[in-house]
Amino acid sequence: MDYNAKLDDALARLHEEGRYRTFIDIERKQGNYPHAVWTTPEGDQKNITVWCGNDYLGMGQHPVVLEAMHEALDATGAGSGGTRNISGTTVYHKRLEAELADLHGKEDALLFTSAYIANDATLSTLPRLFPGLIIYSDALNHASMIEGIRRNGGEKRIFKHNDLDDLRAKLAADDPAAPKLIAFESVYSMDGDFGPLKELCDIADEFGALTYCDEVHAVGMYGPRGGGIAERDGLLGRIDMFNGTLAKAFGVMGGYIAASAKLCDAVRSYAPGFIFTTSLPPAVAAGAAASVAHLKGDQDLRDQQQTQAKILKMRLRGLGLPIIDHGSHIVPLIVGDPVHTQKLSDMLLQDFGIYVQPINFPTVPRGTERLRFTPSPVHGPKEMDALVKALDGLWSHCALNRAELAG
Amino acid sequence: MDYNAKLDDALARLHEEGRYRTFIDIERKQGNYPHAVWTTPEGDQKNITVWCGNDYLGMGQHPVVLEAMHEALDATGAGSGGTRNISGTTVYHKRLEAELADLHGKEDALLFTSAYIANDATLSTLPRLFPGLIIYSDALNHASMIEGIRRNGGEKRIFKHNDLDDLRAKLAADDPAAPKLIAFESVYSMDGDFGPLKELCDIADEFGALTYCDEVHAVGMYGPRGGGIAERDGLLGRIDMFNGTLAKAFGVMGGYIAASAKLCDAVRSYAPGFIFTTSLPPAVAAGAAASVAHLKGDQDLRDQQQTQAKILKMRLRGLGLPIIDHGSHIVPLIVGDPVHTQKLSDMLLQDFGIYVQPINFPTVPRGTERLRFTPSPVHGPKEMDALVKALDGLWSHCALNRAELAG
Repeated sequence: MDYNAKLDDALARLHEEGRYRTFIDIERKQGNYPHAVWTTPEGDQKNITVWCGNDYLGMGQHPVVLEAMHEALDATGAGSGGTRNISGTTVYHKRLEAELADLHGKEDALLFTSAYIANDATLSTLPRLFPGLIIYSDALNHASMIEGIRRNGGEKRIFKHNDLDDLRAKLAADDPAAPKLIAFESVYSMDGDFGPLKELCDIADEFGALTYCDEVHAVGMYGPRGGGIAERDGLLGRIDMFNGTLAKAFGVMGGYIAASAKLCDAVRSYAPGFIFTTSLPPAVAAGAAASVAHLKGDQDLRDQQQTQAKILKMRLRGLGLPIIDHGSHIVPLIVGDPVHTQKLSDMLLQDFGIYVQPINFPTVPRGTERLRFTPSPVHGPKEMDALVKALDGLWSHCALNRAELAG
Repeated sequence: MDYNAKLDDALARLHEEGRYRTFIDIERKQGNYPHAVWTTPEGDQKNITVWCGNDYLGMGQHPVVLEAMHEALDATGAGSGGTRNISGTTVYHKRLEAELADLHGKEDALLFTSAYIANDATLSTLPRLFPGLIIYSDALNHASMIEGIRRNGGEKRIFKHNDLDDLRAKLAADDPAAPKLIAFESVYSMDGDFGPLKELCDIADEFGALTYCDEVHAVGMYGPRGGGIAERDGLLGRIDMFNGTLAKAFGVMGGYIAASAKLCDAVRSYAPGFIFTTSLPPAVAAGAAASVAHLKGDQDLRDQQQTQAKILKMRLRGLGLPIIDHGSHIVPLIVGDPVHTQKLSDMLLQDFGIYVQPINFPTVPRGTERLRFTPSPVHGPKEMDALVKALDGLWSHCALNRAELAG
């Protein structure tokens, strides 16, 4: 058996499709974000502006966050030293869970090392808690939800993206007595469109189903306290489980679910992905808690981010560039081909010092490869001007289509 | 459908078996570990000594680690702001991966948010890289390996723990042309016994199989540079893939694999659990890199830890307490019943300020419930005296068996 030949095959497939990924090495300069330093493959250093980060509000460099992390490092050290059960539960973890439960109007919350593992571990454990559970999953749900739903071979139905009729038909076709769960996102990050949360809750009520809402791209950024789309729309009480991240708008790391005390207790007690892993470092938990608490009161930052997104979309649309606009903070610009997308990204980086990573399959469907911009309150008018001009020039230079590719 | 009643059922099962877990809130005092403060459920604070942590060498409070973390926080901020592909690769991540590749004598390494997800993501991706792969897995492999091997329904064979004949029989029964992988650990953490690494490599050669070795409980602690059991035994070149953690002996957080450049590249490119998750915070990567680099040169700390473990085992054995001793740094004391184990743990904590969490099913098989001590260089003679006396007294008080329960 020639194992290396098999690896060559697997890697060659990616190169042939033009979707082999190269990571670029960057170093953010604290206090200076979105500016960063790029270390090129040749070892040179160049100044760049990051336009594709998920630190949507710049909280990763906010003084309250950094101060909390420094303090916790000094007070308690680097790592937690254990799983949550075996010496790894600290007052920092408990405080953060209380902060998150409050954010989502739930009795409790449960921390994981990432929102990926929070989705995966929770969704794969629910069928053990509710034997016979059928999970109805939106077709565009994140990879981590798909992995969790698939994992234990439980019953699942995939309904067309945001298609309430399809969902209703699938629910109606199943045994009315079976336990059911509808799983969806509030903001789908690659197109930036919203899930129809209220209607999904109505259907869940109609069929006696639980609701599971991934608010990863909304927490911190929507709702009067940053509780997400469900808070904005007055639906906190109608959704049974929230999934969220501490690594995007909150600027740190980690993920969680928020739900009833009983549900959190059961997931805590049954999910291998929770039980058998070292808990977050106390400093990370402290920084995240400070960020969540701060954003409960900083509506201004949320408003600034929405404004920046609106301006960028207006300017790109004015130039006829094929953006997708569903009214969220995410600005996807469709290129539609993995090789072109990579080339554009390379030219932006090398010629303009603008860093936006190409997004290709499997993150988005083939044929919808794109650049995805994440404007934030820390991107000023100068940075935005430079981006818009560079894109306008490259679009002409490369003779790319305008407008008609947009969704 | 009464969902709450189902949750009640699930939780009642745990209570009935006496294995419902209660996390205790502790706060380590940096510079003062293993001493910590316990916040009781009533909100009181009590001084305790931690005897069950996985910060085996006290690196979680080592100045080189903390300094590196403070520096990175100041230089670059809190979170990485993205997945590895989308703005989340920094010079800190690259440096740490280079440090780990060097530690294991491999061409490359790949970081994950935990060793759990490193195992799960890698083992579930290998069948995609090597179609038809059969994985031969030791019966006592960690939950994260089991989850990864199970995930995609690939072919698997479970061989009896450390049983080379059983493994050979299972290999011989399969198609000689099929790609094969043998997955095992170097130190099994619940009994503290070693895997027969050399013999496993010999068998792998004989059958043309790849080898995957989880060194989570050995990295930093065995081998002249802390490269683990494989380094100690001169087997680095014979094992194809290592899994390790940054959260135990290295004192911080995160996990990784180390392997050939090609294999790391393929896992990097194909594993959803790697692709779709925010990378480690730069400060965590910086602290871990400092710890790995430091331990490459600090044999003294490794020696101290082994000495502490030997002393504790000798003293407990002298009192006839049923410890398991396979010559590793882990000291399991078998109680054999979940309710007794919990009670002993509660008494140690409340009456003696000694914190050792009960270990029960599913972490260990039913009937082998235990207390598991992790002596370290920071546990001094005074702490050890207090522990040994408390255990001796409680063993008599509770009329527990001595010796005959030991493995």
